[in-house]
Amino acid sequence: MNYPSLLIEEAVNELSKFPGIGKKSAMRMVLFLLKQKEIEVNKLGEAIIKLRTHIKYCSRCGNVSDVETCNICNNPKRDQHTICVVEDLRDVIAIENTNQFNGTYHIIGGLISPINGIGPGMLNIEALIERVKTENTKEIILAMSATMEGDTTAFYLSKKLKDLRVNISTISRGIAIGGELEYADEITLGRSITLRVPYKN
Amino acid sequence: MNYPSLLIEEAVNELSKFPGIGKKSAMRMVLFLLKQKEIEVNKLGEAIIKLRTHIKYCSRCGNVSDVETCNICNNPKRDQHTICVVEDLRDVIAIENTNQFNGTYHIIGGLISPINGIGPGMLNIEALIERVKTENTKEIILAMSATMEGDTTAFYLSKKLKDLRVNISTISRGIAIGGELEYADEITLGRSITLRVPYKN
Repeated sequence: MNYPSLLIEEAVNELSKFPGIGKKSAMRMVLFLLKQKEIEVNKLGEAIIKLRTHIKYCSRCGNVSDVETCNICNNPKRDQHTICVVEDLRDVIAIENTNQFNGTYHIIGGLISPINGIGPGMLNIEALIERVKTENTKEIILAMSATMEGDTTAFYLSKKLKDLRVNISTISRGIAIGGELEYADEITLGRSITLRVPYKN
Repeated sequence: MNYPSLLIEEAVNELSKFPGIGKKSAMRMVLFLLKQKEIEVNKLGEAIIKLRTHIKYCSRCGNVSDVETCNICNNPKRDQHTICVVEDLRDVIAIENTNQFNGTYHIIGGLISPINGIGPGMLNIEALIERVKTENTKEIILAMSATMEGDTTAFYLSKKLKDLRVNISTISRGIAIGGELEYADEITLGRSITLRVPYKN
């Protein structure tokens, strides 16, 4: 594509590096920016630069943080003996938004995936083992995605944690709340029968 | 949504101002940025800031430009007596990529749309009339979108230009090249019959 201005070409090239954003979408974003006030566009540019330059990671759980240890690890009201193990930051935000979990997290930063060349050594797993050993952890909740990689990672972690005198649980799988049986896929439906639980009223 | 860091919250808020990008997509973009090298992220932030701060608009046609008049207006090889009138920059890029047009452009910066409160006075139309009067223009090509707003704008422009001794043409409408009749909408197909042209071999 030919661009009428080098500035536009550069901005399109940079914006199209985002996953799922091609040259045409990037061009649309550039046209949007050109219509905005200069101060607004500067705020965006500076937020992006500051984000990457100033961000810190919690030394305990690996969560992002503005300070040395994150808000969740610092909060004395939270159960510091329960650790929910998740893939990345997005999962922390998703679980926090449910308001159903009052423990701490441990972010391993990815899932074991031989196809993508990601082995257990590349994930933040050793620090988790160390935490369980030193922090008198009572329960580990494995909250991985219900994919092949998620299952593999959960299996690997359960093996590693087996001898450490800690309860290991995993988030439940089944029909989504509000979901109709008719539209559930066969594997989920089959598993929801195999993994059935006593009826509570 | 609760964010674990103010930096993330700010970046998500800024990125979700783009049209079509919500908080979740913005969060995904932020996570992508956090995984990139610092120098790469800075390049993006600076490209955005420079884009808006340093951009210039061609004083003749309204196209964006790095200098006072744009590459197209400056190019002596291009036919300076033919003006293709378009809505915005995207259309210039689209037409340039066809390699079929060797004239100049005039960007009016929008379409007449009473519903959105955009009247002819808010568009770059007076400068076009002035150009036609002073530049000895031979032909005006109206290249508006085939929408109600595009048709209204083309009609308005044709009225304004009628008395100026300039040929007015419009881009052809019809079945897209490679398109099958079966899948064409009725209005396009109907118009392609009404607007039929002599068969050339």
